[in-house]
Amino acid sequence: MSLVVMGTVAFDAIETPFGKTDKIVGGAGTFAALSASFLYDQVKLVGVIGEDFGDDNLNIITSKGVNVEGIQIIEGGKSFFWAGKYHNDMNSRDTITTELNVLADFDPIIPESYQDCEFLLLGNATPQIQMTTLNRLKNKPKLVVLDTMNFWMDIAMDDLKAVLKHVDVLTINDGEARQLSGEYSLVKAAATILEMGPKYLIIKKGEHGALLFGEGQIFSAPALPLAEVFDPTGAGDAFAGGFIGYLAKVKTINFTNMKNAVIYGSALASFCVEKFGTERLQTLTQDEIEARLKAFVALSKFDI
Amino acid sequence: MSLVVMGTVAFDAIETPFGKTDKIVGGAGTFAALSASFLYDQVKLVGVIGEDFGDDNLNIITSKGVNVEGIQIIEGGKSFFWAGKYHNDMNSRDTITTELNVLADFDPIIPESYQDCEFLLLGNATPQIQMTTLNRLKNKPKLVVLDTMNFWMDIAMDDLKAVLKHVDVLTINDGEARQLSGEYSLVKAAATILEMGPKYLIIKKGEHGALLFGEGQIFSAPALPLAEVFDPTGAGDAFAGGFIGYLAKVKTINFTNMKNAVIYGSALASFCVEKFGTERLQTLTQDEIEARLKAFVALSKFDI
Repeated sequence: MSLVVMGTVAFDAIETPFGKTDKIVGGAGTFAALSASFLYDQVKLVGVIGEDFGDDNLNIITSKGVNVEGIQIIEGGKSFFWAGKYHNDMNSRDTITTELNVLADFDPIIPESYQDCEFLLLGNATPQIQMTTLNRLKNKPKLVVLDTMNFWMDIAMDDLKAVLKHVDVLTINDGEARQLSGEYSLVKAAATILEMGPKYLIIKKGEHGALLFGEGQIFSAPALPLAEVFDPTGAGDAFAGGFIGYLAKVKTINFTNMKNAVIYGSALASFCVEKFGTERLQTLTQDEIEARLKAFVALSKFDI
Repeated sequence: MSLVVMGTVAFDAIETPFGKTDKIVGGAGTFAALSASFLYDQVKLVGVIGEDFGDDNLNIITSKGVNVEGIQIIEGGKSFFWAGKYHNDMNSRDTITTELNVLADFDPIIPESYQDCEFLLLGNATPQIQMTTLNRLKNKPKLVVLDTMNFWMDIAMDDLKAVLKHVDVLTINDGEARQLSGEYSLVKAAATILEMGPKYLIIKKGEHGALLFGEGQIFSAPALPLAEVFDPTGAGDAFAGGFIGYLAKVKTINFTNMKNAVIYGSALASFCVEKFGTERLQTLTQDEIEARLKAFVALSKFDI
């Protein structure tokens, strides 16, 4: 049994108030798979890269035990590249360059060895690619988590709504929840979205934490208050990876485990933003994760 | 021993997407004292009103057992009046009218019967009036909580910093914490503000809950996700009243009780916004408060 992550594997060039990088490894699939690998040992990644990606960069992913058989390497092709600059408040950013490159014709291939998929994370991509990935699995996974963004709501809402019908958990941010539902109140937005297919909805609110809706219940998870957010790139993907990685580990799907999964996702995301790109996830240890989980407990526990 | 609240007692005229009121009872002191009265039975209010306020309106306050001996009634004077209109998102509002009236010359008088003050809430007012109130108490209270707003930071920062030196707990919102400290990160902002005098800082984040800083610890309290915020007026004051009311009841000041106090304050605020003005606080019962506290526990509890 395994956890399959479909998502971009890419190069990013990032500028924040703290500094600036050349091309470094990024992509939703990368962040999510690395994050999940700390909680579950059968993580398999589906994606596409160009010949320019290089073994050293692929090693960043495989060194954590992530299976990359499902990553297609396109001969003579160039990897997806995104360059962006974060503003001083770190909550908004400008895209400087988006080069789709090999992503433009991405046709997700599921290797036979991935057909034991029990947990599936459909990372942020066109809803069409997300649907194709799902369709190419011979058995319906036990749990399907989908991440998306406002861009797909703008240009492919019908496709998005079609794939949402097959999804168990949707993760989006507060602005996206409002856009998808047409409701300003997040409680009303959640009620509307939970009619669209997902059984659970996670609304990510950045520095304000996350809300989990499902089974007629609501859970409010705090974000760790950080003195400095060094680079927010990949935080949402690390969250999704930690979330599904925890569920793959405990296997049982219920609201209690979902709540813990949100905390695990939040913990992984809180590490991700401490350094540029995947740098912090590369050095992260299990002891550090344990300590961070305790910090989340201390942060939110009260006794009434 | 008693809990003294100094704050405005006023008329408001409010427009929200849900409707519109004529002049109704409002004011920071009113909301805070009403809120505190549900948790502690020796609440005493200091403020000023005009002859236009009327017994029926004063009864809204006294009917909850709040002592109003410290409210001066100015002969021939008119009560402070604020009219405002909330935007669709309820997070921003336009002030339509501000008539200071009797508030312009407000000189807070502390009746002899208030000199048993053990807990003091200095509601939002000029820092000068807050300082005068504090100076007119013969004994230093066990706990001084101060609420303020960006307006005083704009026009009376020196006075504000002077009174902050004598305060135990400061409650402000996130934008105000950034303005007061000059720091964007709330963690850094808190560190700076805790050097200014207060031992504890509460940063209110509206629909995103509140953060409590002090004793080297941080507590993140959720806000109750509401389908509809009917009228946000007074929510911050109801929060402050519930916060200090709980501490007056339990008497012991430590981080554990402070955390509970933040939850009690959040619960009272969550009721306040359900109807216009003080309407919801007028009909609120202890059973409803108990049920709301349980909802806060369910909302934020997880077991890692």
